[in-house]
Amino acid sequence: MKIGVIGLGLIGGSIAKDLRARGFTDFVYGVGRNQENLDQGISLGIIDEAVDMDTAIANSDIIVLATPVNTMIKLLPTILDKIPSNTVVLDVGSTKAELCKIVHDHKNRKQFVAIHPIAGTENKGAASAINNLFDNKMCIFCETELSSIEGLQKAKALFTCLKMEIIEMTPADHDLHLAYVSHLSHVISYALSATVLEIEKDRSKILELAGSGFASTARLAKSAPEMWVPIFEQNSKNIITAVSAYIDKLQEFKRLMVEKKFDELHNYILNANEIRRILEKK
Amino acid sequence: MKIGVIGLGLIGGSIAKDLRARGFTDFVYGVGRNQENLDQGISLGIIDEAVDMDTAIANSDIIVLATPVNTMIKLLPTILDKIPSNTVVLDVGSTKAELCKIVHDHKNRKQFVAIHPIAGTENKGAASAINNLFDNKMCIFCETELSSIEGLQKAKALFTCLKMEIIEMTPADHDLHLAYVSHLSHVISYALSATVLEIEKDRSKILELAGSGFASTARLAKSAPEMWVPIFEQNSKNIITAVSAYIDKLQEFKRLMVEKKFDELHNYILNANEIRRILEKK
Repeated sequence: MKIGVIGLGLIGGSIAKDLRARGFTDFVYGVGRNQENLDQGISLGIIDEAVDMDTAIANSDIIVLATPVNTMIKLLPTILDKIPSNTVVLDVGSTKAELCKIVHDHKNRKQFVAIHPIAGTENKGAASAINNLFDNKMCIFCETELSSIEGLQKAKALFTCLKMEIIEMTPADHDLHLAYVSHLSHVISYALSATVLEIEKDRSKILELAGSGFASTARLAKSAPEMWVPIFEQNSKNIITAVSAYIDKLQEFKRLMVEKKFDELHNYILNANEIRRILEKK
Repeated sequence: MKIGVIGLGLIGGSIAKDLRARGFTDFVYGVGRNQENLDQGISLGIIDEAVDMDTAIANSDIIVLATPVNTMIKLLPTILDKIPSNTVVLDVGSTKAELCKIVHDHKNRKQFVAIHPIAGTENKGAASAINNLFDNKMCIFCETELSSIEGLQKAKALFTCLKMEIIEMTPADHDLHLAYVSHLSHVISYALSATVLEIEKDRSKILELAGSGFASTARLAKSAPEMWVPIFEQNSKNIITAVSAYIDKLQEFKRLMVEKKFDELHNYILNANEIRRILEKK
């Protein structure tokens, strides 16, 4: 099985690494604009060959589209225009509605499978690819009724090899839920970083005093804008709603503090503690 | 050296564990209101004996006050009233101004050292105590000029044994900086949890979709109100300022989203990314 990875970053690179290590593929093509990154992909043994898009499309059994989501919008229709009849293309983007909409009526829509494997780190580039990133995590398939049975089978085999649990969802439901359980976390982490950097003019103090709690909540603020601005743009309606709801909750916290209603604050926190029961079931 | 730990939670328990494992102490008294927790401390080998407060004060060389910060305010003056002349008491609270103020003029003030070892997890109770929690982390000493040389020496020996780096700071500076680099992180994590729990009525969806990013930003929301409400109360002025500044940053993010100013959003994120350089120096 030959795999073509378009966009050799953390996700594309980690997929290639595991598929190769687990014998799912014997040849990986890498496609990208950054020659240095592709060279690194070769020297790290993530891809076998760096090629142009057309070569990857013509020679892969499965094409994995792993660019930022704005680039996906541009590339996917072209890929579907050129795709050989036995090939499947799947994306791994963090937003699903806009991409699904743009190819909804494409004559080769059935050769596309819309997928979001929920895994990642705050790092980027081929060098950030790691093994076992996807093990035991959730993978969302969207609009499977529009994909061919053969294409779906290939895609399911791939993500089963990555040891992911596959669930189905509509693109709209995906984007709504992800706004709350993923995209909002990035917004609040960026805002935390921006706040602390602005206030703590003497940045050595941050260095000295930041504990593991701060490192945990600020971790996502390391994530690159090239990846995240397009996600925020494509899912802006849901994210604006989520951020508004979040600001309301912060205002409530602040009000309880200002009014010295510490018994109510206790209950606010007890309620928030519920997240433990939910997260620890995972 | 005999150590009396008053409040046998994550911090008190972890201190006892390491001090014992590293030969700093040969006997640890545990004091607390929860008999089951104390029994657990004994069976886990964290303390040697559960005693009442007076016994611990009379027989310890160092008393470690590790209760929630509101309880410290009540206990510390009494402890200083009864403390033998060769004994030192130190606290490990996350707020420093109010506690320092309340004992400022106590006749035995010099036998107290005000300390904040910056380490922790979201768990509580003797069973949550872990080894090596403090290794290579920062430990803040406040108002050392009011402590006796002997008391300071004992306290420094203890936190050096815990492999911490000791720095000094005024109580006011401590509380201001910690509001931003620690307390604010807890507020935003609680608010994130409260928001998501409210919106995601179907909580199984959270379970299914929450990735490592959400788990990271929501981790602190598991922290107990018994510990955190008193911290919020004692440091309310600084925390209200920090939360207000944070809400402003979120409003700015939201405005850029609503006005579709994605170039400015890119810059907002680039700025937030600076936290990587600072955190990774640690």
